[in-house]
Amino acid sequence: MNAAAIAPRPAQGLDLPRPYLLFLGDADDTGFLKTGLGLRDWAPDLCVAEYKCDGARASLGLPVLRPADAYRAGARALVLSVASIGGAIAPPWIPYIVEALEAGLDIISGAHDRLAEEPCLRAAAERLGRRLIDVRVPPPGLPIASGKPRTGKRLLTVGTDCALGKKYTALALAAAFRGRGLAADFRATGQTGIMIAGSGIPIDSVVSDFVAGAAEKLSPDADPGHWDVIEGQGSIFHPSYAGVSLGLLHGSQPDILVLCHAHGRDRIMGLPDYPLPSIGEAVDLSLQLARRTNAAVRCAGVSLNTAGLSADEAEALIARRSREWQLPVADPMRGGPSFERLVDACLG
Amino acid sequence: MNAAAIAPRPAQGLDLPRPYLLFLGDADDTGFLKTGLGLRDWAPDLCVAEYKCDGARASLGLPVLRPADAYRAGARALVLSVASIGGAIAPPWIPYIVEALEAGLDIISGAHDRLAEEPCLRAAAERLGRRLIDVRVPPPGLPIASGKPRTGKRLLTVGTDCALGKKYTALALAAAFRGRGLAADFRATGQTGIMIAGSGIPIDSVVSDFVAGAAEKLSPDADPGHWDVIEGQGSIFHPSYAGVSLGLLHGSQPDILVLCHAHGRDRIMGLPDYPLPSIGEAVDLSLQLARRTNAAVRCAGVSLNTAGLSADEAEALIARRSREWQLPVADPMRGGPSFERLVDACLG
Repeated sequence: MNAAAIAPRPAQGLDLPRPYLLFLGDADDTGFLKTGLGLRDWAPDLCVAEYKCDGARASLGLPVLRPADAYRAGARALVLSVASIGGAIAPPWIPYIVEALEAGLDIISGAHDRLAEEPCLRAAAERLGRRLIDVRVPPPGLPIASGKPRTGKRLLTVGTDCALGKKYTALALAAAFRGRGLAADFRATGQTGIMIAGSGIPIDSVVSDFVAGAAEKLSPDADPGHWDVIEGQGSIFHPSYAGVSLGLLHGSQPDILVLCHAHGRDRIMGLPDYPLPSIGEAVDLSLQLARRTNAAVRCAGVSLNTAGLSADEAEALIARRSREWQLPVADPMRGGPSFERLVDACLG
Repeated sequence: MNAAAIAPRPAQGLDLPRPYLLFLGDADDTGFLKTGLGLRDWAPDLCVAEYKCDGARASLGLPVLRPADAYRAGARALVLSVASIGGAIAPPWIPYIVEALEAGLDIISGAHDRLAEEPCLRAAAERLGRRLIDVRVPPPGLPIASGKPRTGKRLLTVGTDCALGKKYTALALAAAFRGRGLAADFRATGQTGIMIAGSGIPIDSVVSDFVAGAAEKLSPDADPGHWDVIEGQGSIFHPSYAGVSLGLLHGSQPDILVLCHAHGRDRIMGLPDYPLPSIGEAVDLSLQLARRTNAAVRCAGVSLNTAGLSADEAEALIARRSREWQLPVADPMRGGPSFERLVDACLG
């Protein structure tokens, strides 16, 4: 899988300055770098370098450049590439962001908090004539969901938890569908996906009454053979975000679910009192809830995040889990025959 | 049940002008008059009269007064007491609302659309020095849900559909709990409940990421014997609003669910392609989802809306359904021994 396989689509109301310097904040764990990982893997041509707070241990493996050097290397925006709980802009980040503004970079954020609501940033941007761009602002006029069936085909990635591969899986499947000559669009529902794709709806920023309606709008009526491959959000098992996930599930009316799971994770990330469901429980409940708006929905298989394993270990694990779970299992980041079988199962 | 049994609590940031003239818009069906019905039944002392568009057929059975006459009778605010799909302010209502402003009334709305965003209303209010008050504005600073267990006891009303008695049931149960000498608070999650109670969080207006967190904040840690009786919203079976309902369910961490259903309703209101679940299905799925944040949750019974039946018919129906569903069944609006048994089951 690579970014070149993702066909460019026109941005809807976005005009992002590019390329990017990726800001990693004070993260010590790459698990918090969803935005940065997504951009590095799916839009590598847009990623000039990374930059972070002094002492932070997480890295994307990109060259490290200070903002002034990144500007000289071509960068035109600092992308906040680290998720903090709730999407807030952490105070320790602010001097680093101001430094970027002073170096000539605009700022792009996918956080809930508006950049301009931080007085230091607003003042610096105004003083320097720089832009503060919030990707996580839903479009106006979203409808209440109608529940009416739509034409075309839809696939939604769902998960046993957050931050384990729902976006990557959707990007990889959309690319694979196109690789087989099918019409397919990746439909972004989160800030990173929107930065990669150039359009989409930040679903977790939508007022709750309109989430299912936003999902309906995101994957509208289409040709019978067309696929919308929709980026899932959260998990119906996550005590903080399950409502977001269910609204997206109902509004997407998926024909196909692909369940995403991370090998070795047995607790909700950040909430150790919450065990993950078994794969069987997750498939059953996801299908039960999804049938409410599409009685024909089925689960094509499991996207298993095997990061940290060797190629041989991953291949053996995928084969073992596929027998155990009685479903096609693949790691889309590794591709290979198991991934082709998962694609077959989606289309079959 | 009556409003006097609801102990007054101080408003949180609200200072609503009272009493009210209830505006019914162009509604032809009392099913759209949730706000008006709630105020009439639970805050009758606040309801001076009703007013509506020419030709509209719905009525709350209150005296009909034009705004100028209502002002002379003591009214100080026009309450928009009709729900339109999505919470919009319908254009045909505007001249009637302007008439109320001219008569000296402030305007109170529970719609998603801000009153001041309607240019005609804003101009009239500014010209006349009147207030436009939006009840459906969530408080700032809502947290992401933590999923941590809280002290005290919680009851949540859930439903097979919207608009069938979740608020009434919660009000009636909170009053009954207090009638038995228990400490109990009604926790409002919708605009009408907030207008009645003077505080609460309009849960369907909260950005989706924060819905479960808002529910956690709405029913905070309390004394072990204290009950929060939480007004449910929507239905996990409603294709437009299930995500709201699930976020509220998870964040509320209820010990007790009371399932609300309307006799004779077999389709989602306004969405005839969507059948309602059976009571058994609704109880099972509600409990399955609720167990994620409170493993000890149980369903105490069914609140059955028997509006339109005679007293004898309702009593016979309630007895029959209780045998059929193997659960306590009562219509809180009618009270009586079956309702006392439902209260027993909640507390037992």
